[in-house]
Amino acid sequence: MPQKILLDVDTGIDDALAIYYALRHPELEPVGFTCVFGNTDVDIATTNTLRILELAGRPELPVAMGAARSLLWPYTREADFVHGSNGLGDVELPEPAAKAVDEHAADFIIRMVKEAPGEIALCPVGPMTNIGLALAKAPEIAGLVKEIVVMGSTLAHPGIHGVARPMVDANFHNDPEAAHILMQSSAPITLVGMDATMTTLMSREMMDDIRANGTEAGRVLMEITEFYVRSYEQMHPGIAGCPLHDPLAVAACHAPDLLTRERLRIDIELSGALTRGQAIPDRRPMGLERANCEVATGVDAPRFEAMFHETMLM
Amino acid sequence: MPQKILLDVDTGIDDALAIYYALRHPELEPVGFTCVFGNTDVDIATTNTLRILELAGRPELPVAMGAARSLLWPYTREADFVHGSNGLGDVELPEPAAKAVDEHAADFIIRMVKEAPGEIALCPVGPMTNIGLALAKAPEIAGLVKEIVVMGSTLAHPGIHGVARPMVDANFHNDPEAAHILMQSSAPITLVGMDATMTTLMSREMMDDIRANGTEAGRVLMEITEFYVRSYEQMHPGIAGCPLHDPLAVAACHAPDLLTRERLRIDIELSGALTRGQAIPDRRPMGLERANCEVATGVDAPRFEAMFHETMLM
Repeated sequence: MPQKILLDVDTGIDDALAIYYALRHPELEPVGFTCVFGNTDVDIATTNTLRILELAGRPELPVAMGAARSLLWPYTREADFVHGSNGLGDVELPEPAAKAVDEHAADFIIRMVKEAPGEIALCPVGPMTNIGLALAKAPEIAGLVKEIVVMGSTLAHPGIHGVARPMVDANFHNDPEAAHILMQSSAPITLVGMDATMTTLMSREMMDDIRANGTEAGRVLMEITEFYVRSYEQMHPGIAGCPLHDPLAVAACHAPDLLTRERLRIDIELSGALTRGQAIPDRRPMGLERANCEVATGVDAPRFEAMFHETMLM
Repeated sequence: MPQKILLDVDTGIDDALAIYYALRHPELEPVGFTCVFGNTDVDIATTNTLRILELAGRPELPVAMGAARSLLWPYTREADFVHGSNGLGDVELPEPAAKAVDEHAADFIIRMVKEAPGEIALCPVGPMTNIGLALAKAPEIAGLVKEIVVMGSTLAHPGIHGVARPMVDANFHNDPEAAHILMQSSAPITLVGMDATMTTLMSREMMDDIRANGTEAGRVLMEITEFYVRSYEQMHPGIAGCPLHDPLAVAACHAPDLLTRERLRIDIELSGALTRGQAIPDRRPMGLERANCEVATGVDAPRFEAMFHETMLM
């Protein structure tokens, strides 16, 4: 039985790769997609999600639009230099024929989780605003999800560039209060953060192979990813590829043993001038007694990269 | 030529061990001691420092009393369960004959550093209040010290028990603003924090050997340390000894290659509800360009423990 997955995305280039992976990997069954601001505006992210579903030949899958901004503050688009001004590396894909469903992402999440209690892996790979809204409205879904696998946090790896707070990842940065609601929810949570994702790589060799031997959709995705790789090559000279942030979180939904895990207490700093949005681990006995998640401290990168490569050729 | 060291202490049991180490190790030349609140009240810490000098037969060395509280807030004594109600494990030592010099610790630091420019290793192993006051009054001493070796910070190791902030060490906890002044000072700084010190151990075997084969002073110090070890055995069941926090910082003044070091930017969070007092590393390129210290990420513990053991027998 493939794992049911509800993917919450801010599409976004690595979101596009993650969506495609979720659609193609035989051990995953996407039940729908919810969209949020983050890498780009929520309306662009929603249209991009529909575009990727169309590209992959799955336009019938439901897509719900959600939050346009964080719970507390307006949104300023800051990631165009990573994702392009259209969120897909400035590659122009056709307007999608399908439209988003007429239901807010938070309500869509609540409904889907309640319709399949214990079955759905919720996988937010953008700011956690939709999940936070869903948990605030229907706290009982914390006990009805199979698990929540989050792309977010960093404990040891440097945080995102260009912000004053040095140990904060992009998704927690974009809505610390939503992340806090999630971490307080008692849901079974796995954090797949930069400590794990930054050790993964889609190499230029892998990209060339997908272009040469993959599907037409795979070829288009590599064209989109070219922009992302160039941005990473500027931030990390010599990287010759890009990390696979969002795809790793999706893969962890069906292959949990990819990750090295540490069970501990994580709380989100909401107030620090240097630390707002930072995930603060409590590894003291008093913290471990109140553990609320597992954090990925590492990943079997070669195995994951091979799984990803193979899936992108499908 | 032994390294001149000015040791700033909140004596305190591991401070007593550190003072004795500084007095006995042939590669160190203590030029004086300054005292601060922290493990206990500053007047108790000062008298205890005089007691240890007397015990070691060096009552002529100058001791200056300093801050009784942090820069911003009153002090509440919280560490009696670690250091005993008299700061020396409830072992009663005679009243010292010598008195503290008639000069505030901050002024003593400024004067000593200016009298021997480029020669003195300043080694704060308590809250950095005296150093912060000295740097605020005479910022030029930042360029006149040989280096400042601080016992403080933690990057990966869990912070102190019993406080709401899970990643803060005791010394940064006790005066975050003073630590901030120090980190902003442009002095050459080495942080010897819990990431390094918590991997060191004075074992019960070492203690027995010092009792059996050491000096009378060594025997008394082991009697004092018994209280400290019992407290560590409660916090860390099975440890069978105690870490050597303050002595490691002192040893790093004459044997810098004991430490594995990482050069980076550290700022102190002053405002976070979960993070006030936490050392926040910036390992991004924008941080490394503004590096302000070296942090001990590890230590050659067997070599240090052997050095310490040998020195305690002297």
